[in-house]
Amino acid sequence: MSPAHPHEFIPPGSRFHALASPFPMKRGGVLHGARIAYETWGTLSPARDNAVLILTGLSPDAHAASSAADPTPGWWEAMLGPGKPIDSDRWFVVCVNSLGSCKGSTGPASIDPATGQAYLLSFPELSIEDIADAAAEVVRGLGIERLACVIGNSMGGMTALSLLARHRRIARAHINISGSARALPFSIAVRSLQREAIRLDPNWNGGEYDDATYPESGMRIARKLGVITYRSALEWDGRFGRVRLDESASAEDDPFGLEFQVESYLEGHARRFVRRYDPNSYLYLSRSMDWFDLADQAGGDTLAALAALAGNGVEQALAIGANTDILFPVQQQQEVAEGLARGGAEAEFIGMDSPQGHDAFLVDFERFGPAVRGFLDRL
Amino acid sequence: MSPAHPHEFIPPGSRFHALASPFPMKRGGVLHGARIAYETWGTLSPARDNAVLILTGLSPDAHAASSAADPTPGWWEAMLGPGKPIDSDRWFVVCVNSLGSCKGSTGPASIDPATGQAYLLSFPELSIEDIADAAAEVVRGLGIERLACVIGNSMGGMTALSLLARHRRIARAHINISGSARALPFSIAVRSLQREAIRLDPNWNGGEYDDATYPESGMRIARKLGVITYRSALEWDGRFGRVRLDESASAEDDPFGLEFQVESYLEGHARRFVRRYDPNSYLYLSRSMDWFDLADQAGGDTLAALAALAGNGVEQALAIGANTDILFPVQQQQEVAEGLARGGAEAEFIGMDSPQGHDAFLVDFERFGPAVRGFLDRL
Repeated sequence: MSPAHPHEFIPPGSRFHALASPFPMKRGGVLHGARIAYETWGTLSPARDNAVLILTGLSPDAHAASSAADPTPGWWEAMLGPGKPIDSDRWFVVCVNSLGSCKGSTGPASIDPATGQAYLLSFPELSIEDIADAAAEVVRGLGIERLACVIGNSMGGMTALSLLARHRRIARAHINISGSARALPFSIAVRSLQREAIRLDPNWNGGEYDDATYPESGMRIARKLGVITYRSALEWDGRFGRVRLDESASAEDDPFGLEFQVESYLEGHARRFVRRYDPNSYLYLSRSMDWFDLADQAGGDTLAALAALAGNGVEQALAIGANTDILFPVQQQQEVAEGLARGGAEAEFIGMDSPQGHDAFLVDFERFGPAVRGFLDRL
Repeated sequence: MSPAHPHEFIPPGSRFHALASPFPMKRGGVLHGARIAYETWGTLSPARDNAVLILTGLSPDAHAASSAADPTPGWWEAMLGPGKPIDSDRWFVVCVNSLGSCKGSTGPASIDPATGQAYLLSFPELSIEDIADAAAEVVRGLGIERLACVIGNSMGGMTALSLLARHRRIARAHINISGSARALPFSIAVRSLQREAIRLDPNWNGGEYDDATYPESGMRIARKLGVITYRSALEWDGRFGRVRLDESASAEDDPFGLEFQVESYLEGHARRFVRRYDPNSYLYLSRSMDWFDLADQAGGDTLAALAALAGNGVEQALAIGANTDILFPVQQQQEVAEGLARGGAEAEFIGMDSPQGHDAFLVDFERFGPAVRGFLDRL
């Protein structure tokens, strides 16, 4: 295992799985001595048939919910725990931190054992498929032959589809939340611009920064652009309207400083993110999404690629998202359900009237909670 | 008139109107010796009753279409000219360059006669109302008491509403294209981020840059973010899909360089914009949109503020936009028509099924051309 690096941010309840060494990467190269951080909730049944895997979006760590090892609230606290929609009294739940992340799994900020230095941009090209393969190793390492369900949110929805495609019979059921089978050009454009903002920051310096020269400006722009595309115009009009900040909070002496509440909201998001995420990790994970196209393995036919997942053992599926999502539009979740159904799976799509856009699954528990609970209850 | 400044970009067919000196600004301060660039097409009738005024978005100059003075195509070439939807055989058309722009009208890059130096950030705070007042002076200066119609696109839609509110009986009719009566928080967030990208560029330097230190990175980000929000995910999926660049066009030695066609498209837009627009002008005009709320003068009631325009002499109105516009959503054009109708004007709203988003009026002439022509023909 790599020693901690200043740009790794590891939740205290993390456990670690050592990946096979060498761990081969899809686009070339291998990792030596790499690891995946994960957390678990609940108890694996004697038949080992009650395991649920959660795959995350770009930025979350493995701390999806509080536990004895880490009682602080997780990023999906309302969804996961005893009696909650993903009920840890029934399910043994595993959440893995993506390969390439800076939240405990091996990534660009980790030490390359071959050099004793951080990988930085010498980290091999990272694809969604690599993230999926690493997650599969964690599942196998926990003695689980077949998951009861794999749940993927956002980027994790891509990772889940890749996992199902590459690891036959790894799961009986799948919930795809605000995910997609391929990156759309609009989303590629947004992510490309986020990466460009980081790369244009002189402090990024080809990936060679330290705490004193962290590319804060680039990360601020990238995060704020993310937040803008994660939400929706509709929600913000109702939430912020044209309300101004108090005079004390606005910058009187800065002619182009904060003035509206919506600007302060973005500023808060940027402050909570910047310096708590490794910029190189961000670049690698962001690019992996652009590259993802499940149909690469099916001659460009997305529905055929999805149908093949049923042949790989997916019997039941639920694809859900928010009608206001501009980054992973609901048509993409509809496509996931349609493809799986075409292959013979019992697949349902629900487009939620959540106003919160792509982020709805992180906040609109009134809609997403019952949908997930209902599906899992029927398994 | 100010001498040309290196960051002014003036179309060769421009004419200039000297504004009243001092010219008072809504939020305080005055301009001395300021001017507005404009172009005209067609002939003013002896009764001076065939004048149509065009008010533009943030970046365009006054060169809306080719003319004897400047035969190069204008930014609205397909819409304006003999026999075109805005028919210069019938109408005397005036397009003004906004106050604060760098395309010939006085703005932050112009010389302050009091100091002999460029204004830069000493330019007074610029509001949509100031842009409207300056346009009204051009109209009066051309001997026009009452316009047959004022057409405003995007930011120009805001300027047109402000003109109608502040200058009683200045126009009999109005076409509002992809405009709005107030800035929404989503649009404020996007523009705030564009401005932040410019301000975070070390070369911006509090507005004191020159050709050697032009804030190119900030302007690149601002422009690309603009292009992303001006278009729509739907259009781009059909247009670009996941098509890659030729290997020769992609940057093999740049691990995070251009790879997809959509990235190259954004890059082309950035190249055509950067160094051809003054960053300080961009900041001033962008902020003026955030501040705009027609209802400021009507106790916060947008429909009442719009209804009052009918009382100010607007007899007929058309509000149109694209259903895919995320920056000025069609609900805002619908609101413009509803408010004007409430005041007694004959007002129609059309939400076009254009896939091109906010930019549709610049490209979807099959839809926008007949709508504008039909309205003008009925006047």
